[in-house]
Amino acid sequence: MRRIFHSRFDPKARFVRLALAEKRLPFELIECPAGAQHPEVSKLAPGASGIAMIHRAYEALYVVVGSHAICEYLEEAGDGDSLLPRMAEMRAEARRLWRWSEDELRLTVDTLLAERLTMATQPRHVPDSAALRMGAHALRGRLTFLNYLAETRRFIAGRMLTLADLSLAAHLSCFDYFGDVPWDLAPDLKDWYGRMKSRPSFRPLLEEQIGVAKPAKHYADLEYCFQ
Amino acid sequence: MRRIFHSRFDPKARFVRLALAEKRLPFELIECPAGAQHPEVSKLAPGASGIAMIHRAYEALYVVVGSHAICEYLEEAGDGDSLLPRMAEMRAEARRLWRWSEDELRLTVDTLLAERLTMATQPRHVPDSAALRMGAHALRGRLTFLNYLAETRRFIAGRMLTLADLSLAAHLSCFDYFGDVPWDLAPDLKDWYGRMKSRPSFRPLLEEQIGVAKPAKHYADLEYCFQ
Repeated sequence: MRRIFHSRFDPKARFVRLALAEKRLPFELIECPAGAQHPEVSKLAPGASGIAMIHRAYEALYVVVGSHAICEYLEEAGDGDSLLPRMAEMRAEARRLWRWSEDELRLTVDTLLAERLTMATQPRHVPDSAALRMGAHALRGRLTFLNYLAETRRFIAGRMLTLADLSLAAHLSCFDYFGDVPWDLAPDLKDWYGRMKSRPSFRPLLEEQIGVAKPAKHYADLEYCFQ
Repeated sequence: MRRIFHSRFDPKARFVRLALAEKRLPFELIECPAGAQHPEVSKLAPGASGIAMIHRAYEALYVVVGSHAICEYLEEAGDGDSLLPRMAEMRAEARRLWRWSEDELRLTVDTLLAERLTMATQPRHVPDSAALRMGAHALRGRLTFLNYLAETRRFIAGRMLTLADLSLAAHLSCFDYFGDVPWDLAPDLKDWYGRMKSRPSFRPLLEEQIGVAKPAKHYADLEYCFQ
């Protein structure tokens, strides 16, 4: 059995959940407050932070921490459909863009998204408008490149669905909950995201809410991206 | 033939060079200014930034961008010794700590190291003391954890040398060039780093210099860490 220790609006955690769902692997979700680690994980992997998986298989216990280690572990275990292409050059492209999404959207996660989450859970929090602006600006700066990928390829890294699509969609879904993705600037990306969020793997994410914040009107609307 | 497009004091680029050297794979180095990409890479992988490899093998051309994609590619190609353990749980631990070093030391790279590099190459640059302090503080905060790993394990992720050791050592080597690692606070880590920098794979890194900055006295001294 796989137990996933996650925080709901952590993009990397959403990414891992999407990967597990696309592979049709069963898992149990254990929610942890953002930034804190579950004692069960800390005991087995000192210093671990963020998304973690404990996998009990036969007699063995596997503790896997972080989106990189978890997704590579799932690929190597070979359970479920592969989310990396078979050819070496396409695998490299998928890993490049998977990692791109984690690295290049990190600033937006640390500023804009972090601020939105604090605002949602601590209603008395005074928003840091500089952080909000900085995160929004960084996201806008990445949209041209992402739209170019969506325009020229069926999926982000090529012709098949890969971990790059799931990682990027997981990140965008967190921003989109708060209405923070200027979709009009990236019509092809919007179209790709519409296809992503219509996938059954996405459904549980679209149902989640946080604190006092209601999702943006179009967040769970499967038709929105095709209008 | 493998061509590596790198910048000398980019920790992730140093990490990839260490991995190639430990695997005893030949490669040609092409230096790029920090932050800029070589046109040959940009043409083949739009939007690529940082360390990149172009690998010509038989009739095929592989363009691999980023430390994550490059090192996983090298492991999968199976050329040279493996730098990931065989057992799944140990592979997961190596990948966790490899990624930990890239993520958790990133702030120090972006502030302290970036500032040092600018100071070295633009002598008229006025140092941003807030950035220097922030990076040094972040590094100091990570040393306890790293020293704990070095104290309890032969290598960072366990009993064998893995990508986690190479990534961490690559990062520390950049900071150490400028004398920015307070080794006295982490005696076991210092001992581990001494063993790392005595490896033949490290030699080319220890000979490199940048701009007007001379390396810290002990930087290339192989005995320093054992005193």
